[in-house]
Amino acid sequence: MSIARLTEQVLDTERDRVFQYAPIGGYAGDPELRRQLAAHHATEPERIFVTNGSLQALDLVAAHLVNPGDVVYAEAPTYDRAVQIFQRHGARVVGVPLESDGLDTAELARRLESEVPVLLYTIPDFQNPSGVTMNGSKRRELLRLAAAYGFTVLEDTPYRELRYTGTAPASLAELDTSGQVIAIGSLSKVLSPGLRIGYVIGDPALVRRLADRAEGVYLSPAPLSQAIAVRCLAEDLLRSNVERVRQLMAPRLDAAVEAVRAQLGEVLVAVPEGGYYVTVHLPVKTGEATFLAAARDAGVALTRGSAFYPDGTAPPEGTLFLRLPFQAMEPAEFTAGIGRLAALAAW
Amino acid sequence: MSIARLTEQVLDTERDRVFQYAPIGGYAGDPELRRQLAAHHATEPERIFVTNGSLQALDLVAAHLVNPGDVVYAEAPTYDRAVQIFQRHGARVVGVPLESDGLDTAELARRLESEVPVLLYTIPDFQNPSGVTMNGSKRRELLRLAAAYGFTVLEDTPYRELRYTGTAPASLAELDTSGQVIAIGSLSKVLSPGLRIGYVIGDPALVRRLADRAEGVYLSPAPLSQAIAVRCLAEDLLRSNVERVRQLMAPRLDAAVEAVRAQLGEVLVAVPEGGYYVTVHLPVKTGEATFLAAARDAGVALTRGSAFYPDGTAPPEGTLFLRLPFQAMEPAEFTAGIGRLAALAAW
Repeated sequence: MSIARLTEQVLDTERDRVFQYAPIGGYAGDPELRRQLAAHHATEPERIFVTNGSLQALDLVAAHLVNPGDVVYAEAPTYDRAVQIFQRHGARVVGVPLESDGLDTAELARRLESEVPVLLYTIPDFQNPSGVTMNGSKRRELLRLAAAYGFTVLEDTPYRELRYTGTAPASLAELDTSGQVIAIGSLSKVLSPGLRIGYVIGDPALVRRLADRAEGVYLSPAPLSQAIAVRCLAEDLLRSNVERVRQLMAPRLDAAVEAVRAQLGEVLVAVPEGGYYVTVHLPVKTGEATFLAAARDAGVALTRGSAFYPDGTAPPEGTLFLRLPFQAMEPAEFTAGIGRLAALAAW
Repeated sequence: MSIARLTEQVLDTERDRVFQYAPIGGYAGDPELRRQLAAHHATEPERIFVTNGSLQALDLVAAHLVNPGDVVYAEAPTYDRAVQIFQRHGARVVGVPLESDGLDTAELARRLESEVPVLLYTIPDFQNPSGVTMNGSKRRELLRLAAAYGFTVLEDTPYRELRYTGTAPASLAELDTSGQVIAIGSLSKVLSPGLRIGYVIGDPALVRRLADRAEGVYLSPAPLSQAIAVRCLAEDLLRSNVERVRQLMAPRLDAAVEAVRAQLGEVLVAVPEGGYYVTVHLPVKTGEATFLAAARDAGVALTRGSAFYPDGTAPPEGTLFLRLPFQAMEPAEFTAGIGRLAALAAW
């Protein structure tokens, strides 16, 4: 059943409700949606807070936790919009290096001896931009450090369910035994980005404070979007969507890895098992702007990789960080693009 | 045609678009919605910025204009959520008295000699909470002062189209000749609160800055909500809705005014010609908490009127400010409630 057809069902049965105000006074989302999301994550509805997309979730959590002058740790590289949100709330964002198997927790441990952040932001699964997934032992070490030093781990999971091969390590939220983790989820990649449904999983007291804050900013998410999500979850559309994405993406990922290795050499940052991106540290003699301009002239539009690095961090000396999104391209098209990059890299 | 039926039309024709991301990079709203809202307000689409409800519009404008320590002027009383937004952005909110025909502009002129705010927030039509409408000469005087002293007038207009009798004075935005006015509109009262569609009308440069800011907070409003609004505006549903509200509310307003005069005496703050509220300055011997508790015990649930007054302001000595919402009650029910209040006021 399609999301459009399920939306028609919502209209048939709930038209009197979905165009009206949601309840006010501590509203944390459609109660049924909170129940479903809680079940999906094997947690309690009281720990779910629904927002207008996961970026808004990040903004509310940052508003709640970050005070001007606070230090926030993030992976280097990381999602640039998240860095901007923390900075807008007055944080100094410090990058901790990312390795092919996740955050450099040894380096993190050294840093913590001299400076403890208010929170550490991580995208542990198929990270945007790097495609890297944090391995299980690093996850446990991160949580041990968070408990020992008393900082919050903010786990952002938009790509987690888009695994095309291999086995998922437990999420940080699942491993958390000391209440250090706040998780952020999204239906954008697994159901529909247009619904603008994100959510926070955290302590019920946090959920109540976020609800109060959100009510003062935008009252509530739209009841219609939430009701559509409810219907789609009830019909198991997430699972069938994810299965369809897997079928489509698994060969694209394989082809992308193969194309990079064959034409650019051993430059992959990691070999991802899901998500949207493969990434490389490409040795080049020119600067980033020159290289990207040449790539654009050759018909390959790439995002500026340095923009994903928090201030004071950078890819390895003599290389450019390039994010190569394979999700929207047929393998042949992707491979041809890598060929054009290879010609440039040989400069 | 109902909003649910028009939503089905959206699904029939735009299902491939409305569940996807809106464009990014300076997105200020669905282009067709911006055109329609501009036409509705006799202005240009470049001056329209669409948000997740008008509260979010207020928050974004406040984030843009207010720096910590700035002074914001607001009517006393005024919409409490607006005051909280300005305060959250670091403003000191100062109340300027509201009279039965609008803001006390003579008092404003005196204040401006010693302190000029960054902005003045006003709800000039059927104000929440007071029901007061600012008369035409005060509107012109406010704009003259804004131009002379160089502050922004933030005009919030959620109830403006809900006029049941009389003639509307020109809006502040319509009267503005020096670019001092930013207007905030909402489809909540005239179409559907559940769609969460608010908008800002202002200078194109302001619109672009708000678009950049919003993209960093929540990416975009939901395409589906906006597409539904487009369809409803195209089918003139606003006009038919407003007409229906007028038919329903005009007798309720008359009955409410009549009931208050007959049972509470000459205590009306104003005789409104639209909106949702009649309000009174009720002479009472008890304090507010005691009175409201007694009213609640008598079956009349009222909002705490003092909460609408910015710090340091209050209703006239010896009176309580009571907001009496007539919009959701049959005249007989409202009249009975006033009777119960009258019994208490006679204490």
